[in-house]
This record gives sequence, structure tokens and C-alpha cells, in this order.
Amino acid sequence: MPLVRIDVLQDRAAEQLPAIGDAVHRALVAEIAVPERDRFQIIARHPPGLLVFDPEYLGIHRTAHIVIVQITMSLGRTLEQKKALIAAIARNLSALPDLRPEDVFVNLVEVVKENWSFGNGIAQYAV
Amino acid sequence: MPLVRIDVLQDRAAEQLPAIGDAVHRALVAEIAVPERDRFQIIARHPPGLLVFDPEYLGIHRTAHIVIVQITMSLGRTLEQKKALIAAIARNLSALPDLRPEDVFVNLVEVVKENWSFGNGIAQYAV
Amino acid sequence: MPLVRIDVLQDRAAEQLPAIGDAVHRALVAEIAVPERDRFQIIARHPPGLLVFDPEYLGIHRTAHIVIVQITMSLGRTLEQKKALIAAIARNLSALPDLRPEDVFVNLVEVVKENWSFGNGIAQYAV
Repeated sequence: MPLVRIDVLQDRAAEQLPAIGDAVHRALVAEIAVPERDRFQIIARHPPGLLVFDPEYLGIHRTAHIVIVQITMSLGRTLEQKKALIAAIARNLSALPDLRPEDVFVNLVEVVKENWSFGNGIAQYAV
Repeated sequence: MPLVRIDVLQDRAAEQLPAIGDAVHRALVAEIAVPERDRFQIIARHPPGLLVFDPEYLGIHRTAHIVIVQITMSLGRTLEQKKALIAAIARNLSALPDLRPEDVFVNLVEVVKENWSFGNGIAQYAV
Repeated sequence: MPLVRIDVLQDRAAEQLPAIGDAVHRALVAEIAVPERDRFQIIARHPPGLLVFDPEYLGIHRTAHIVIVQITMSLGRTLEQKKALIAAIARNLSALPDLRPEDVFVNLVEVVKENWSFGNGIAQYAV
């Protein structure tokens, strides 16, 4: 159910991308009870200058190792769950090479539960 | 008004992409009364491994022919309309070569009507 | 806080893209009080046919110079602020070469304030 878009700069090695996807997915599974197999992610690399970020906003020092994670997910998680999810994403990602917690940007977009189909033309989560 | 993002794997032939866009658009026109000319779509192809999908979630067998359709649209459709839209997207897409209903993933993101401009700096749908 | 996705056709010169990003950002700063340094944008170029647009919807004549701007931002702006934002985006963009107000498409996606992290695993805007 989450649809996860992950955007990085293109100088990041392609070999690192699966581990980045894994790190985000493990946070979803651990913190907001996303099923292990409910994994759908689009990872894109961008030329320098086309993924634009401020290197100092809020006093956080960001580098070209930035990872932008935008997660579309169902409504219903508490603020505490969302905070735990964000913390786990940063913790899991920053355990990887060339990845600092300062470089983890996260945005959550919430939709009603009925707005998903996992195949066969059926809105599987609709009541 | 819908803004439609369609993501596929890059081994899908470029020639098939216009038909994929058409199939999604016809479903929007038929099921939720989107005007015929209200068509705005961004179709992207991704290297293997960067469009990540589970091949079995919910017992649905997905393949590398997967099509991920994320539609940003205005609020106001009923659950029945959204179900009919999802069914029509899968039906229209699976009429195409190399496309099975199991490989059609859909997510709807709903926004208020005033959140669109089709040009000229005007929010044409705002009241 | 806004996460801005800007999509254009690939025949647009790469040198124009930073100015396009600037134009959108200045509108956000001027009209909805986004902090100057709160700038996070993903700009992508697409082959012809993969960024699909209607050249006449609502009687507005669009060309291959189209710029699609999708802004994810926090809830809380009034209709008047959103109208002013949309007007400013079109005004700023159409001051650039090869950019007409008719070719500026804008969509706003609003999320609750707590749905952002700018780094360090903290939801900085959560109360």
C-alpha cells in the first residue's frame, strides 16, 4: 500500500540503490505494520542541479548524498507512529555507506484506504 | 484535472506507451466524467531494480510488465465511482499486448478542486 | 516544506532549468511565506510523447514548452493565498524565454504539517 518514491543524485552508485529501498521498507514494516510483501517503490537518479536542495535549511547540513523519500500511504496512523516511521527511515538509511541522517528528507502523503488497487482491477482495501 | 503518473520498466517497448496512456485516460473519461481533453500524463520508464514490486503481495502474481498508475484528481467521487475507475483502468490496460490485470497497480491521490491551474495563472476550478 | 516536482519536455535546454526552479520558488516565498531556504525540487525532462498534454483543454493553447508543476505542501493556506501562488508561478515562469503563461500547469497536493522531515529523523513541523 505505500507507494514510495525515492529520489537521489545520479552520482550515487547504482549498487547502493537496492539497500536504500530496503532500508525504507524495513522502517515501514517495523513502525507502521506494513506487510513485508507490500513493497512498491520507484527509485530515480537525477543529474546534479535537477534535484535541488538547500544545504542549510533549519540548520541541518545537507550534501549531495541527499535522499528524498516521498511515501503515499493510507490515513490512520497516529502522530507517534509517523514520528517513529520517520526516525526509523533516517536510522536505517544512515547505517548505509555515504548516508548521513542529515541527508534524509521525508514527506508523507496520506490517502483514504479505498484508493489502492494491487492488481486485477479491484480496490482491495475498500470496505 | 487528473495529473496521471505512469511508471513502467524500461524493457517495455516505447511504442506501447501511448496506448497505455490512452487506456488510462479512457477509463477516467468513462467512469468519473473527466472531460476528453483534460489529459495530462507523465510516463516514465525505469531500469530493472529501480521500479521495485512484490511479485506475490495479496496472492496476486505480478511480473516485470507491471504498470504503476498514480492519479492525482479532485475530491468528490464516490467509492462506487472509484471502484469503477480502478476496474476500467485494469480492463482497458489488460486489453493491450504484454499486459495482464494482475500487473495493474493503481493509487488515487485526491485534492480539493481549487488546487489546479490549467494555464494562465488561474485556478480554473476554484469557485 | 514544499516538495516541488517540475516536469518538462526534454528539448527544453538544460540551462533553462535552474531559472524555472527559481521562478517557482520565488512564488512560494512571496505568496505563501515559504522560507527562502526551504527549497527542495525535483526537475525532470521527458521524451516527446511521454509528457502528454492536451493542446486546447479549456480553450488554453498549450505547446511543447509546457511546464507541469506539482507542489506538495502543508495544509493551512487560504483559497486567496493559493490563487495568488498560482498566479505568481505563472507570472514568474512566463518572464523566462520560451515560456508562456498558457504553458504553466500547476497542481497543489496538501498534507498535514507533521508529515515532513528535513533531516535527522525528526518531524520538525510536528507540534
